[in-house]
This record gives sequence, structure tokens and C-alpha cells, in this order.
Amino acid sequence: MHRFEVWAPRASRVRLYLHNELREMQPPASVDDHGWWRLEAPDAGPGTGYGFAVDDDDQPWPDPRSLWQPDGVHGLSCVYDQAAFAWTDKGFQAPPLSSAVIYELHIGTFTPEGTLDAAIARLDYLVELGVTHVELLPLAAFPGVFGWGYDGAALYAVHQPYGGPDALKRFVDAAHGKGLAVLLDVVYNHFGPVGNYTGKFGPYLVDTHHTPWGGAVNFEEWGADQVRRFFLDNALMWMRDFHMDGLRLDAVHAFVDRSAIHFLEQLATEVEHLSSAIGRQLTLIAESDLNDPRVVTSREAGGYGIDAQWSDDFHHALFTAVAPQETRGYYEDFGGLAKLAKALEETFVYDGIYSRHRNRIHGRPAGTLDRHRFLGYIQNHDQVGNRAQGDRVAMVAGMDRARAAAALVLLGPFVPMLFQGEEWAASTPFLYFADHEDPGMARAVSEGRRREFSAFGWKPEDVPDPVERASYERSGLRWEETAAGEHAQMLAWYKELIRLRRSLPELEDGAPGACRVEFDEQQGWLMVHRGVVIVAVNLGCQQVRLSVPLVTELILGSGTSTLQSGTLTLHDGATAVLRRQ
Amino acid sequence: MHRFEVWAPRASRVRLYLHNELREMQPPASVDDHGWWRLEAPDAGPGTGYGFAVDDDDQPWPDPRSLWQPDGVHGLSCVYDQAAFAWTDKGFQAPPLSSAVIYELHIGTFTPEGTLDAAIARLDYLVELGVTHVELLPLAAFPGVFGWGYDGAALYAVHQPYGGPDALKRFVDAAHGKGLAVLLDVVYNHFGPVGNYTGKFGPYLVDTHHTPWGGAVNFEEWGADQVRRFFLDNALMWMRDFHMDGLRLDAVHAFVDRSAIHFLEQLATEVEHLSSAIGRQLTLIAESDLNDPRVVTSREAGGYGIDAQWSDDFHHALFTAVAPQETRGYYEDFGGLAKLAKALEETFVYDGIYSRHRNRIHGRPAGTLDRHRFLGYIQNHDQVGNRAQGDRVAMVAGMDRARAAAALVLLGPFVPMLFQGEEWAASTPFLYFADHEDPGMARAVSEGRRREFSAFGWKPEDVPDPVERASYERSGLRWEETAAGEHAQMLAWYKELIRLRRSLPELEDGAPGACRVEFDEQQGWLMVHRGVVIVAVNLGCQQVRLSVPLVTELILGSGTSTLQSGTLTLHDGATAVLRRQ
Repeated sequence: MHRFEVWAPRASRVRLYLHNELREMQPPASVDDHGWWRLEAPDAGPGTGYGFAVDDDDQPWPDPRSLWQPDGVHGLSCVYDQAAFAWTDKGFQAPPLSSAVIYELHIGTFTPEGTLDAAIARLDYLVELGVTHVELLPLAAFPGVFGWGYDGAALYAVHQPYGGPDALKRFVDAAHGKGLAVLLDVVYNHFGPVGNYTGKFGPYLVDTHHTPWGGAVNFEEWGADQVRRFFLDNALMWMRDFHMDGLRLDAVHAFVDRSAIHFLEQLATEVEHLSSAIGRQLTLIAESDLNDPRVVTSREAGGYGIDAQWSDDFHHALFTAVAPQETRGYYEDFGGLAKLAKALEETFVYDGIYSRHRNRIHGRPAGTLDRHRFLGYIQNHDQVGNRAQGDRVAMVAGMDRARAAAALVLLGPFVPMLFQGEEWAASTPFLYFADHEDPGMARAVSEGRRREFSAFGWKPEDVPDPVERASYERSGLRWEETAAGEHAQMLAWYKELIRLRRSLPELEDGAPGACRVEFDEQQGWLMVHRGVVIVAVNLGCQQVRLSVPLVTELILGSGTSTLQSGTLTLHDGATAVLRRQ
Repeated sequence: MHRFEVWAPRASRVRLYLHNELREMQPPASVDDHGWWRLEAPDAGPGTGYGFAVDDDDQPWPDPRSLWQPDGVHGLSCVYDQAAFAWTDKGFQAPPLSSAVIYELHIGTFTPEGTLDAAIARLDYLVELGVTHVELLPLAAFPGVFGWGYDGAALYAVHQPYGGPDALKRFVDAAHGKGLAVLLDVVYNHFGPVGNYTGKFGPYLVDTHHTPWGGAVNFEEWGADQVRRFFLDNALMWMRDFHMDGLRLDAVHAFVDRSAIHFLEQLATEVEHLSSAIGRQLTLIAESDLNDPRVVTSREAGGYGIDAQWSDDFHHALFTAVAPQETRGYYEDFGGLAKLAKALEETFVYDGIYSRHRNRIHGRPAGTLDRHRFLGYIQNHDQVGNRAQGDRVAMVAGMDRARAAAALVLLGPFVPMLFQGEEWAASTPFLYFADHEDPGMARAVSEGRRREFSAFGWKPEDVPDPVERASYERSGLRWEETAAGEHAQMLAWYKELIRLRRSLPELEDGAPGACRVEFDEQQGWLMVHRGVVIVAVNLGCQQVRLSVPLVTELILGSGTSTLQSGTLTLHDGATAVLRRQ
């Protein structure tokens, strides 16, 4: 027995495809049914394949809310028993963001197998590294085998090549068993261009607004309630049924929602209710390019009440400080220690000032918002993967500057986030890859990628082709690198920094005033004061001598630095962490 | 000598057309010039015709910021001396919104001549009527002669058939001289489809978002700062140079602006600064269909800081209460006294509840916002003019119910607004009319109008053609109607109501609790308590008897009503205004 339901507000007829036949579904009885069609089938249960035919369709489409697509996004949906899994994580609580260190992880490239089960075997490594939260790139089913996951088509189904829904539950349960929280990246601003059949059923997208990925999601027009419910219920499902500790919301700046209650506010409200109901701390983190404090301001204060957001300004300021040759694209708005100091002290560099790249004034001051409402990072899937060759910061800026950057991320005011392999300066790139089965789409993606980078002077043959499997395979981590040499040294450095952050309360202080910066643009040094801790980096080309309080000890260093009689000497590229007594 | 300036951020060349020749303008010298081209011409002064040629254009286009288009929107721009007018209104201050009665007025139909100068002759009438503010439908130059004005193309130029810029100054100066404040309706959400040459110069519109009137205004994309300045400077100009006391902002719900500082907030901030600088109270009133209190919430509390907004929910609730046969289009969401009572007490009827017409949840409670942040009306240009035959409330609901509606508007909690001629139940309609010179556009407008109303069962021949001059002429007020008969009686009723509102402090109380409503849906009566004042209307079909406090006197009435021993008897259609002693 299974009760099938589907929203099709404009359909004149919906039929359930089951056991090779089409059965008429019950139409919405009144306006209170809001366009939902229903049918109970006594001969369906877990594992039964099904689909829906709309109007005169003679073939079924997959269920927009399908929980299981064992044959991929184009195949039949499959009834899945959400309640069957035997959880063992009772009582698990995620650490608060204020003491979090987040690790961004792509299931397909994290292990050679590219599955959730294989990733379970690496959880001990993450525990030893010292991170508290794993953030998984999107797992919603997308066409083909490999991809970043931002082209998800069946948003309720776990990508089958990763192991499907049961594998995700095994992963989360195992992570919780080891004390690790799990966050999931979800994409609510668009659907993947292929395999998304929601348009057969209802107005999920509008044609009045366009995003870089097609029609905008219908958050505010006719039928928007049920579209919002589609995404809200999806969010709640991951946390309630898959025990996720929170979500990372992709590109919320692409939402067009002028409703009196913004989708993000509604989501934050419902997640708060779920949190109370299940007694677990739940976290929402937005990717926002708006530099608008409203996103992470409490609802009581007129904000949307999202817990935290990514802070690209800090990334760009830090990246251009350690790699000053990077001046193209959005990096034209950054460069120099003054911008890095502003990011560290004030969060948004573009806080109402003119951005040349955008050719407009951008942003608004973060003001007194707690800095734990922002994530700080020097690598993430985008900042690495959106480079032509997917090269990581150590390859671009060298090991010394990568270490300095890590120190500023991990001892800085924001919630630190690492990207898989960053901690050992992995030699593997993270390329853009997308398994487009459709040849026309594949060609468009290949050519689009090459065209994009030709604008920056790249020859086509130097830009790896995203649709080739080799791009995916080259991006797989080589775990053997962690065993020895400079990679092992980098790993040790990261472990030390994380240990330090998690042991010194000053470093977990997110108060706006708890990060004060001195710097010399000319000489290239920068000192970050975090209570009694000082993080000093020399990004210049020659040795510098800095005055520090007399009663100060050197507690961690990279490169050559000496501390004597209140003078810190830093060779070029060196990093020193000091503590006043 | 005149200094010409124009924003053309992507032009390779801009030439000034002057005295039959094209002169090279100086390109922006640096990024700090933000795309502005400049040229001083010693041989230009007030009255000199000019234009700009962009890139390879061999003909000039009008200046997007032209102050004067004596030959219409397609003709040359003309240098205009903004400082030459001899103002006589020194020291004038507009009354605050809390004691305002606003009168919406369309220059083209207000007088037989259809000019600003002719309207001056009617100012004494408005003073005698008792209104405090005149709100002018848009005056920005549009193609052709007659139109509502929402298709403005040259947004800085006053429509020449109305008299041009000097005539507007004469009008405002005369109004101020008689103690009347003047508000101007401005359209910042789109340009008229014809005669708008801004696209030749810069990205004023975006192609990622569409409004019902074409591409959305670029408030947030590349170049948006200068587009925002175009509208901001326009707003400031009307108040600074034309002495407007405020603006009515058309359809702000059509703005797409996800900037951290919303255009409306920036506008409110700059208008506040201007107000301080010139020492005059300035008012911003938005037309908003969002039912979002953020629009009129103070900036300190996270809002946009607009002073007030139109309240269509109150209109629709009131209109369907007096004309219950009106159930189509957006009226399907209204009808019945409960909705009217909710509008009177809580402002937004749709305050987070499901709207059938929109097929989505709409709005958010207005909460404790002062009710003077909302305008209340039973007629306006849209609510009359968007009817197939432009018929007014008295024609639809009869004189008695029109009187009752007027009492609820003028003695209710919101800032009352009348539409020209309403006060004498003018027999003339206010039709939709637009003088589209372009035959293709004219045909499209004609056919579009007829198609729109055929959906509501109208035969094409019964829908007046907007492009025919007769539609414009039929909409002209017939002032002779005010002299006698039922029109004169209605005028007397309005004068009494306005006098009452302005003399009893209870009626100007905008506190959220200062309007309490009792009603009986079955019997059709409704009583509004405004401090010691009670406004009772019988919209039902038979006489009703209502208990009122014993020590109550009848101070104003329409239709048959008697008050005896604490019982108010109201014949059907009657209105009574009582006061407790």
C-alpha cells in the first residue's frame, strides 16, 4: 500500500504509471487541495517503480519529489521507505558554528571509489584533522555519473552512483558516530538543464526572470506556495529524515523573491520549528554574493535569520594578497593588504563602495554582526574549480604563502572552511567536470567553458574539457600524498592551526572587535591581533622586523622567524603565531 | 555658455548636435568619470536645441535628462534655465500626512483646456473643497498629446501639451500660494514603449527581468549606479527645482532590486537629506502591491523608509462591500463586510493568508504601523480607468452607497485620497486613453484592451478604444455638474465629511487601535468607532436598528436615519455619523 501524490495545478488529468499500466488519479476536490492529485495503490511498496502521466501523455514522467531514482533521473521513480533505516546516532548534537571548522567535500572525488560508503572509511582521518563539520557538495540526482552536483534534476533523490539514499544515511550515521556534524549543499535557485521534468507538472519556473542557469524559480508568482513547499519540504527532509545538521544554500543571490515573507525567512522559520521539534541544533548557511547583512540578520531585527553566509570578499582579499599576480575577473576589485585588513576587521570589503568589476556600488556594512555569521576560506570548490586548470592556492602562490593564508583562515575571525585536499596542498586539481549525456548539451558546456577562459587569454587546448571523464578522474584526491614530504608537512601545519584555534578561546571569539589588524602595504607584512594571540605574516619579498610586546612567546611558526627582545623577525613568506603572556 | 553632459558608458564616441553641426564631446577621462561625456558650448543657452549622436550615429537623439522637449519626445532637446523662474512661495510648508486629504488630478481631463495653467483657475475650488494635497498624474513627456502619462519617455521634461516646465512652476507656485501642497506621480519602474531613447546611451534596462511593460529598470546590474542616479536626480529635481512637496512612486512592486541598499531606501535617504537642506517637509508615497510593511517601515527598523503607500486591499474590500456584484478579476479575493472590517482594523486583508486570485499566500501583517502610512480611497485613476467603461463608483453602486463609501474613506483611519470629480459623483467616466502616434503600437493597444475585457465577457464594441481622441474627450470633467442637483448634493456631502475629518482630532488619529469595527454580515450594517465618533452604514437591503450609547448625537447623515433612546435606525443605504458626548 502506498499513497501517491503529485502537484499538477493546471492538469486536466493525471495518471499514475504502476506495473505497466496507467491509473487515473483523483483530481483536487476543492481549492483547498491546492492542485494536488492523489491515489492510493494497495499493490505498491518500497522498491515499486512508478511515474506520472499528465494530460494526454502516454508515457510517465518521474515524480518531482521522487526519493529514489535507481535508474537515473530519466528513469522511473521508485517507492522508498524513509523510515526503514536503523539509526544509531541518538542524542548527537552538532557543535555550534562558533566552534566549528568546516570541511567541504565532494563525494565523487574524495575517494577513488567516489561513493558515500568509501567516504565513511575516511571519517577517522577527518576526526584526526580536527574538523567538526563535513559539508557535502550537492547529492541530488543529476544526469550521468560524474559532476559537481549543481545541475541536480531530481532534488529529493540521492544520486545513485554515490550510493543512493541508504548510503547517505549510512554516511551521516557513521559521521555522527565519530562526532562529526554533516551539512548538505542544496541548490534552490535553479534546476539542472537536463532531466528536470517538473515543468510537466507545474509552474516551478517563471519566464519573467532569468538566472545564469535559465528561468528563475517561481518564489512569488501564481502557484508559488507549492513551489516554495517543494523546496521547504526538501530542506526539512534532509534534516529530519537524513539527519543532516544543516544546509548550505547555493547562490541565494539568484533568488527573485519580492514576497513580503522572503523564501529564506520562511525557510529559517520552519527550520527553527523543526529544530525545536526534534531537539537538534540545525544550521543554515547561505552562499550570498549580495554583501547584504539582511541575509544573516535575525528575523526579529528585520533580517532573514540565516545563521551564516560565505564571505567571498575575505577569500578574494586573501587570495590576491598571497597571489598578487591575480588581477583578472573579479580579482580586479581586490589586491593589497588594506583590503585584506578591511575584510578581517569589517567582513565586507564592498560595503557600500564602488566596485569596478560590477561597475556599481556594492554592499552594506556588516556592522556589529557576529563574525561567526560568516565563513572564511582560501579554497572552496568554486574558487579552485572555476579556474581554467583547477589549480589550488599552493600551486598558484607557493607553499609558504599557502601556509600564511591557512593561518589567517584558521586563526581569523570567521568560521573557517577547508576544501578537501587543501590541508595537504594536494597536487590534484579540482577541475570543472559534468557528465552531460546529451551530446548537444555536452558540446555547449565544452565550448562555453573554453570561450569563457579565452577571454582571459587561455588557449582552448589548455582548458581541460569538463565533459571528459579524465577531468573528473584527474580531480580525485591522491591520499598517498599525505604520507610524506611537503604534503605531510602541510597537513601537520593545518592540524596545528586547527588544534590552536580549538584550544585558545581568543581564536573562537567572533565579536566584531575581536580582530584588529596592523599592516604595511609597502613591506608586505600584516599582523592580526586576536586577544592575546598575534598572527604575523610576511607576504613581502624581504625580511621584516616588527615590534611586538616584550612578554610575548612564539607558539607556532612556518618559515624562518625569530623573536628576540620584543622584535619579531620574519623572513619573506614566513608566518608566526605569538601569544602575549 | 552651457555645459552639456551625458552618460554613455559603452560609447566609443559621443557628439553634441548643436546649430546644425556635430561636435566631439570629451570622453570620460578616468574610471572616476563613470562613463560621463562632457562639452562646454559658449554658443548655447536657454532655448538652444541640441541632441547627442552616439558612436556612428549620424542623427542626434534627445538628451535622456532633457528638461525641455518643446517639439515632443522625438524632437531635439532644448536648454532650459532651471533658475529663471520667480518663485513666490517662500516659507510654504505642506501639511503633514497625518492631517492630509489628497486629491488625485489628471491635468489633461481636469479642465476643458487640459493644461496646467487652466488647472490654476480651479485651485480655489479645491481649497473650498477642503483638500490639502493635489497629486498630479505623471507629467513627464510622452509621445502624442493625450494620455494618462504612465508611458513617459523623457522623464525630466514636462509634457509640452500641458504647458511645459514653466507652466508646472506656475501651477505649483499658485497652489502653494493658496496653501495647497503638490505631489507628483513618477514612474520609475519602466519607460514608455515609444520615444524612449535611453537605450542608445546606456544600460537603463536589463534583459534578465521583464515587467508587464518590458525590460525591468537596471537597479542592480552593471552600470546600475548611474541608472539609479538618473531616477534619484529626477526625484530630487521635482522637489528642489519644481518645489514639489513629494512624489507618488508608481508600481514599486515591479522593481527588481536585490542590492544591499534598495533603491527605495536610497531614495528615502536622499530625500530626507534634501528636506533638511531646503527646510521643507517632503513626502514619498509608494504604489505597492506587495502588502509588505517593509516599504513603509522606517530605515532604522530595517525598512525602506517610504512615508506611506496606497492600500488597494482597503479599496477592494470597500468597493466589493458597496458593489457586491463585482466578483471578477482581483475582486474574487474580496467581498463581504468581514474583509472590509479587517481592512479598516488591520490594513492588509492579505497579510499572510492564501489569495485565490494570486494562487499563493500574500502579504504580511501591517502590525503596529501608523495608519497614516497608508492611503485610503474608493476611486483612483486605476480603479476607475481600468474598468472597461471607466465608470465611477456612484454609477456602479448608486448614490447612497457612494456616500457611504465616501464616509468610510474620509472618516476612516487612512490618509484619504479622492479622484477628480469623485466629490460630485461626476457623470463623466475616466477611460483609458493613450495617443499612440505609431500605428502599429496604436493597434496593439486597442486590441490588447479589447482582448483583456473580452475575458470578462465584454463585447469589443462596448469597450471604448483608448487610442481614439473621443475616449480622452469623454473623460473630461463637466464642471457645470457641480452647480445643482444630485451632483451638487454629493459635493456638499464630501465637503461636510472633509470638514468633519479636519475638525475632530479622533478622525485624524492614525494609531493602530484608533479604528474599531462592528458589523453584521447578514444584515449588512457596519459601525466604525473612531474615538467618540461612530460612523454607521447600512449596506444591506432593509432597515436596521442598532444600539448605540445613550448619550450620543447624530452629527451628520445621508439617507434616512433616526436616533432615539440609544437606538439608531438606518434605512437601507443610509449613513450616519454619531458622536458620544
